[in-house]
Amino acid sequence: MQEWRMASDEFGERPGEQRIPLPESFDAGLYFIGRIRTPWKERAACPKNSHAARALGEAAHCVIEIDGRYAAGLGDVAAGDRLWALYWMDRAVRNLIVQRPRHAEGPRGVFSLRSPVRPNPVAIAAVTLIARDGPRLTVLGLDCLDNTPLIDLKPWFAATDAFADA
Amino acid sequence: MQEWRMASDEFGERPGEQRIPLPESFDAGLYFIGRIRTPWKERAACPKNSHAARALGEAAHCVIEIDGRYAAGLGDVAAGDRLWALYWMDRAVRNLIVQRPRHAEGPRGVFSLRSPVRPNPVAIAAVTLIARDGPRLTVLGLDCLDNTPLIDLKPWFAATDAFADA
Repeated sequence: MQEWRMASDEFGERPGEQRIPLPESFDAGLYFIGRIRTPWKERAACPKNSHAARALGEAAHCVIEIDGRYAAGLGDVAAGDRLWALYWMDRAVRNLIVQRPRHAEGPRGVFSLRSPVRPNPVAIAAVTLIARDGPRLTVLGLDCLDNTPLIDLKPWFAATDAFADA
Repeated sequence: MQEWRMASDEFGERPGEQRIPLPESFDAGLYFIGRIRTPWKERAACPKNSHAARALGEAAHCVIEIDGRYAAGLGDVAAGDRLWALYWMDRAVRNLIVQRPRHAEGPRGVFSLRSPVRPNPVAIAAVTLIARDGPRLTVLGLDCLDNTPLIDLKPWFAATDAFADA
């Protein structure tokens, strides 16, 4: 779990890392609109990223459970759709602005990393909707811990979300 | 501006649209880490989406200004990079769960739309970094209103953010 720098773990900075004081108040608020049920109970068990999760196939199926309050927003969402899941990495600290990931040679600015540790720990994952049972969506492409809070779903579009030459 | 359903505009629901009561409190808080300067002062002037913005070329260059507090997080971010900009659509109402966009034939669930009107109005846009001058990033691919709050920047990766067959 160390890689996540859990909120309770305020020690263990690596050489070259840098923390900042965060503002005293927030500028906007989020509602958790559901929860993500995944097979992974600790960070070490999670796939490395969305791409690695997809490669696992059925073993990486996850279930997004949308709260009843928001369920009407799923009209027109159907199996086969490609969606963005936006979720809140609620166990990550937010003040480590320069980080030293294991895979990198030196310290890196947080905005050049997909690390969960960032000022606003919002993750985005491109997922395929395998099946839908009312407010329960079985998806492939998530790599997060079980019980992670969901904050949004949106359609994925090739024209806007990919680059023509990539 | 009507299409955005500004917070001050609580009337004007279209047939088939549906509002929900939102929770009384938030579950998590966001920091605005900068502002986006764009050429567009009202919704009608904005490009339709990221793809349309890219097609405009230089006329759609925008400048992301990162607050000094977070500037060290831009280490290793350089011209030519492809990034995700996550921003907060602060003028949109949040309770319209079924919507009737102009381009659609009937009412649509919000999670099948990229509408700014949604429970958590977080937008994602794939941008190209044209130039960097310290904490000022000139980018192409944004379609938002001038002075929109920024909440995150992350690298864009083909392996995770696109689908192999799309």
